[in-house]
Amino acid sequence: MDLKNYLKDREEIVNKALDSLLPGEDEFPQRLHKAMRYSVFAGGKRIRPILAVASAEVFGKTAEDVINIACAIELIHTYSLIHDDLPAIDNDDLRRGMPTNHKVFGEAIALLAGDALLTMAFQIMSRQVGRAVPANYRWAEPTLQVIQEIASAAGSIGMVGGQVVDIESEGKEVAFPVLEYIHIHKTGELILASCRAGAIMANAGDKGLEAITKYGEAIGLAFQIADDILDVEGNKEEAGKNIGGDAKKGKATYPSVLGVDESRKRAKELVDIAIASLKGFDEKAEPLRAIARYIVERRK
Amino acid sequence: MDLKNYLKDREEIVNKALDSLLPGEDEFPQRLHKAMRYSVFAGGKRIRPILAVASAEVFGKTAEDVINIACAIELIHTYSLIHDDLPAIDNDDLRRGMPTNHKVFGEAIALLAGDALLTMAFQIMSRQVGRAVPANYRWAEPTLQVIQEIASAAGSIGMVGGQVVDIESEGKEVAFPVLEYIHIHKTGELILASCRAGAIMANAGDKGLEAITKYGEAIGLAFQIADDILDVEGNKEEAGKNIGGDAKKGKATYPSVLGVDESRKRAKELVDIAIASLKGFDEKAEPLRAIARYIVERRK
Repeated sequence: MDLKNYLKDREEIVNKALDSLLPGEDEFPQRLHKAMRYSVFAGGKRIRPILAVASAEVFGKTAEDVINIACAIELIHTYSLIHDDLPAIDNDDLRRGMPTNHKVFGEAIALLAGDALLTMAFQIMSRQVGRAVPANYRWAEPTLQVIQEIASAAGSIGMVGGQVVDIESEGKEVAFPVLEYIHIHKTGELILASCRAGAIMANAGDKGLEAITKYGEAIGLAFQIADDILDVEGNKEEAGKNIGGDAKKGKATYPSVLGVDESRKRAKELVDIAIASLKGFDEKAEPLRAIARYIVERRK
Repeated sequence: MDLKNYLKDREEIVNKALDSLLPGEDEFPQRLHKAMRYSVFAGGKRIRPILAVASAEVFGKTAEDVINIACAIELIHTYSLIHDDLPAIDNDDLRRGMPTNHKVFGEAIALLAGDALLTMAFQIMSRQVGRAVPANYRWAEPTLQVIQEIASAAGSIGMVGGQVVDIESEGKEVAFPVLEYIHIHKTGELILASCRAGAIMANAGDKGLEAITKYGEAIGLAFQIADDILDVEGNKEEAGKNIGGDAKKGKATYPSVLGVDESRKRAKELVDIAIASLKGFDEKAEPLRAIARYIVERRK
């Protein structure tokens, strides 16, 4: 399969849906809606929503069937970046090659735009109905399960928890289990939840969901390790952000604890595990396999 | 009826449920969970969850039947206070007679504790199941409707939108429609959503829901007008916060635009409207009637 075309196509579907779901820049209060749109359309790769879509496709559903949930996950990811960039946390000026939200709109609006995006994610998910839900399909229960899992993955024992431990570990010697906790919680959980959300909405069944769960766990961690390596070895133009920022902030990363070579080896092992977990599936799982490889090979 | 006893009893039910729903202070990451609990248990009156409970009771349900949603609304209210108090927004040191969250835990943790509380609200709501849901009761659809309404009331065209307009209006001459927009959105919408949530979960039916909606709209606005008046006329000990803060910040308030007497008159009119909207209901609506009166008579 042609991954590049696949990613481009699904990214367009996600972008179009995000555009129609988000309030317009002319809707009151305009400055808030401008700030929300600024960060949502700041050039994200849409990895999480595409994973939700690709996971649903394994079980015969389409992007349209899970589009609200896919978009909601991207909104949660975006809100977390806006808040992380704030002076109170990472104090970053640059994100994906553009000034961060608070640099453009000020701290108050950036904070509130993040709050509004997080809130809107749950609003969108709760009206998750594919265009063509069969009358006998009880979509409400799986939707509630997905809301619960995504909220858990994003909350105090998920993404926010990982962020707290990350902050508390800055400038400290960090043991490997703490580093792994940060990575799994700060990044891995939401990626796992994205994969599971697609599978749950597509009625994957126990065995299918188990396979997708193994896949999601492996690539969730692999993704963050690859990010750490890019922060050491990438270049500013390709990555769209200042390189070496982790080291400057004294952040715990895989390369800083295990070295670059060992980190790369671990990421590749995780990709192998992810692909192996899909071995029972047919060619409809090809996008998931290709995304797993891409995650450690990407340059940004 | 004895409102004082009623409020005390329902407050205890809500507090007990919040305590069992929130992660313990000893759960990792402890500092985050301490910060979340600090603000949730900082002496809130629990007006919103009690309104959800009282609205459900009108239609024969009990507090236990809607307790998750009631608690979720209180978490959303709490997160909004933590974020509003941050230096980037109101920069308040004192809330309900105690140091604000960021004064105790620092800005980063306060910001993230707010994020986690908002996220947790939706996690709790999505597993809203009364202890004794009949097998044939399709609770999932009304739960999704409630999630959607609460998210809408809390989001960019609800509470967060009201907060943005409030910030943008600071120090400016504000026209009455703008003031009303701020009050309805910043406070009114979530109070209305609380009432509607209780009624929806209790299967109120169209006519019942219409009455509760009129009630919720009226007391939502009355509540904020009463708050404005308290900020002018209250005393620090009773209110648990610095008095006159609105005027100092150049905030638009009802007393500053209409004067205290006219503001009090409006609040009382709204209470009359709220009580009139319940005229078809029996004594099970007595708590809602009493709460409406209490809202403008309270001293904090």
